[in-house]
Amino acid sequence: MSDKTIPYKIYLEENEMPRQWYNVRADMKNKPAPLLNPKTHQPMKAEELEAVFCKELVKQELDDTTAYIDIPEEIRNFYKMYRPSPLVRAYCLEEKLKTPAKIYYKFEGNNTSGSHKLNSAIAQAYYAKQQGLKGVTTETGAGQWGTALSMACSYFGLDCKVYMVKVSYEQKPFRREVMRTYGASVTPSPSETTEVGKRILQAHPGTTGSLGCAISEAVETATSSEGYRYVLGSVLNQVLLHQSIIGLETKTALDKYGITPDIIIGCAGGGSNLGGLISPFMGEKLRGEKDYHFIAVEPASCPSLTRGTYAYDFCDTGMVCPLSKMYTLGSGFIPSANHAGGLRYHGMSSVLSQLYDDGLMEARSVIQTDVFEAAEQFARVEGILPAPESSHAIRVAIDEAMKCKETGEEKTIVFGLTGTGYFDMLAYEKFHNGEMSDYVPTDEDLKQGFDGLPKIG
Amino acid sequence: MSDKTIPYKIYLEENEMPRQWYNVRADMKNKPAPLLNPKTHQPMKAEELEAVFCKELVKQELDDTTAYIDIPEEIRNFYKMYRPSPLVRAYCLEEKLKTPAKIYYKFEGNNTSGSHKLNSAIAQAYYAKQQGLKGVTTETGAGQWGTALSMACSYFGLDCKVYMVKVSYEQKPFRREVMRTYGASVTPSPSETTEVGKRILQAHPGTTGSLGCAISEAVETATSSEGYRYVLGSVLNQVLLHQSIIGLETKTALDKYGITPDIIIGCAGGGSNLGGLISPFMGEKLRGEKDYHFIAVEPASCPSLTRGTYAYDFCDTGMVCPLSKMYTLGSGFIPSANHAGGLRYHGMSSVLSQLYDDGLMEARSVIQTDVFEAAEQFARVEGILPAPESSHAIRVAIDEAMKCKETGEEKTIVFGLTGTGYFDMLAYEKFHNGEMSDYVPTDEDLKQGFDGLPKIG
Repeated sequence: MSDKTIPYKIYLEENEMPRQWYNVRADMKNKPAPLLNPKTHQPMKAEELEAVFCKELVKQELDDTTAYIDIPEEIRNFYKMYRPSPLVRAYCLEEKLKTPAKIYYKFEGNNTSGSHKLNSAIAQAYYAKQQGLKGVTTETGAGQWGTALSMACSYFGLDCKVYMVKVSYEQKPFRREVMRTYGASVTPSPSETTEVGKRILQAHPGTTGSLGCAISEAVETATSSEGYRYVLGSVLNQVLLHQSIIGLETKTALDKYGITPDIIIGCAGGGSNLGGLISPFMGEKLRGEKDYHFIAVEPASCPSLTRGTYAYDFCDTGMVCPLSKMYTLGSGFIPSANHAGGLRYHGMSSVLSQLYDDGLMEARSVIQTDVFEAAEQFARVEGILPAPESSHAIRVAIDEAMKCKETGEEKTIVFGLTGTGYFDMLAYEKFHNGEMSDYVPTDEDLKQGFDGLPKIG
Repeated sequence: MSDKTIPYKIYLEENEMPRQWYNVRADMKNKPAPLLNPKTHQPMKAEELEAVFCKELVKQELDDTTAYIDIPEEIRNFYKMYRPSPLVRAYCLEEKLKTPAKIYYKFEGNNTSGSHKLNSAIAQAYYAKQQGLKGVTTETGAGQWGTALSMACSYFGLDCKVYMVKVSYEQKPFRREVMRTYGASVTPSPSETTEVGKRILQAHPGTTGSLGCAISEAVETATSSEGYRYVLGSVLNQVLLHQSIIGLETKTALDKYGITPDIIIGCAGGGSNLGGLISPFMGEKLRGEKDYHFIAVEPASCPSLTRGTYAYDFCDTGMVCPLSKMYTLGSGFIPSANHAGGLRYHGMSSVLSQLYDDGLMEARSVIQTDVFEAAEQFARVEGILPAPESSHAIRVAIDEAMKCKETGEEKTIVFGLTGTGYFDMLAYEKFHNGEMSDYVPTDEDLKQGFDGLPKIG
């Protein structure tokens, strides 16, 4: 093993933890396009958004000029329960691959939600509490966000109603019990509990659901219940803002040891982890201070950046949410039920979409058997059982490290290991039994989604 | 919240990590009684033990005079992948309980095995590899030890055969997949693959198994296969030696901040965690340097210390293993299948048994609904979803903190949080649904176990 002056795990001290989130929009020349009212197609005003979201979060959502925003003390105290997260030097993986590359990963899985989602959940629950709300509603896919929000709500004594994508609800009954342990109620989506749920069930009987459906139901429940607001675990600007803590800690840890990464890799579903991880580095790139090669990795079965179109679209299947300009497969797109790798959202954060459209980062899609192969390889040498979502980033990190082996380059690779796979063992089992297929949508499949895009202006 | 000069989590630096294990037997005036040959009732010789166990581990098993034993570099490197584990100040729990007590817990769950078991698994796999073995066999109950050993064997390229207690095998199919991810084979026990398994199945058709049965099967397989040895995750002296890393790290972290604990609490099944956690503190007590109040917590449904007898007994149900002098319920004792809280072993480490018999520590038993209530309370404020096993210690830590609230004493309480409960959601579900019962064996139940004890001398 190589330069052991760098420890296996770099932990920051508590007093080195960030006291402010970083808002990458402040440094973007081309700002992400504003959310539009789905009826009038005019930019959403704060008052309109406040019917759905908490007041302070709306402010954060619309603020594209303030670079640093204070993290309230209550949130910083909660962060201290599970943060700082370690930046790990993957010595064992490097040795296994026999690569000259230096590989680091920021591991966000060491908390009960099992992922980075808690970083934004606690912030959103805090602002809901500050506003005097009774509770919040949300959707969850794999269940990481729902678990994170349940934990955050339990901490602040808020009610928490979770709509869980039906396929995950059925495949992950234990996730439901974790959320119940934290006092949340969990409903499989689409459900009969909302008008939009009934409509979707009528149009697509037997559907296994999608994040887009679950969002519609959660929004309807929030807006029709006194004292409730809707919160979302990804896609939104506010979420990327909260998740910037990942990138800020990563950067502080790297700086401490004088390390400059060449390549920064993150998996991308709605963009919360990738956006959070790369934010401060992207800021340097936008300000012309440094250059980095950013890679967004998405599943070939839900390829919003690599095969989507950059257009205004609904954030949800039920078309009740505002329109967002983003790389999208169309809000009607539902990934194949064969797809076990997570990252099932039809669109992508408008911040990341704009950065991608401006040529500031690369995107790659990978098939899921390749992803699980990388996951298993990683687990065996690094000890951590990764979530399928996170394993998309592992796949590309290994690919890049193997390129270095060919060229002899000693590149420094950093990737985001967003979470653990303890609740994904059904997917691992499929993989072990050779029952996992690699669905890739045809152009015809995608055309249907694109045909459903709203016509703007 | 009180004195915030102590961080939420105390992490040691890599160079502060222990380089030697501590062998508490060296400081014991009354040494634990030797293992006896089950046929001759004479102390087991090294050669005899080496038919079952790895050579170097036999040496560690029999060494009751060397206080400090070097940790080989390969093991220290593996430890660096997931250690040092944090010593956490439970500020949020203290605030919730409104207790003047100061509560700390050493959290061993931040690795994929989900528990402290990895500390000994990697050591045992290392010595097996050094000896040039093909593989090892073992038993596992809740699955934490099996997972840990699978991870360790995968790291060193050893084959790993796991006998898993049938009730756990059925309730925790995902545990099996984690072990498969690491390349292990897993057989539900009792099984038809061994003579002893067949015998037990014949005598007790429909049995849900026990650790004692699974041990018998694993030992038979090891001794009847070329190039295999048997390894055990608890009870043995060598295991307590390896687990002393928990206590050593805890002590270093406390010393760094000038903290002296009053009470040290650990859950106790076979004794691996409790023994590891208390070892260096017990050493101080044995040498007359300091005094501490140690509390072993066990389930009321499997009360080996609180209601067992101190006698020579078989370590396994099949009576193929050496005899160990310990607090025991009898090797035929099988806890009720209602019992979901783990810690199902019929006996207790002979080191801990001797210390308990010498009045050097207290033992308490708790019923499982009280344990799950404490688990849920802890999860909601401290964020971590604890394993049922670990929650036994949480229960008593909370009880002691509440006593401090009554008396106004500002005691410092340290407990071992051995692992996470991600694979225990069926038990949590039972608890949530009010379907969990509190089985406590009658004196008549226990008498049956005692009647089966071997007659020695």
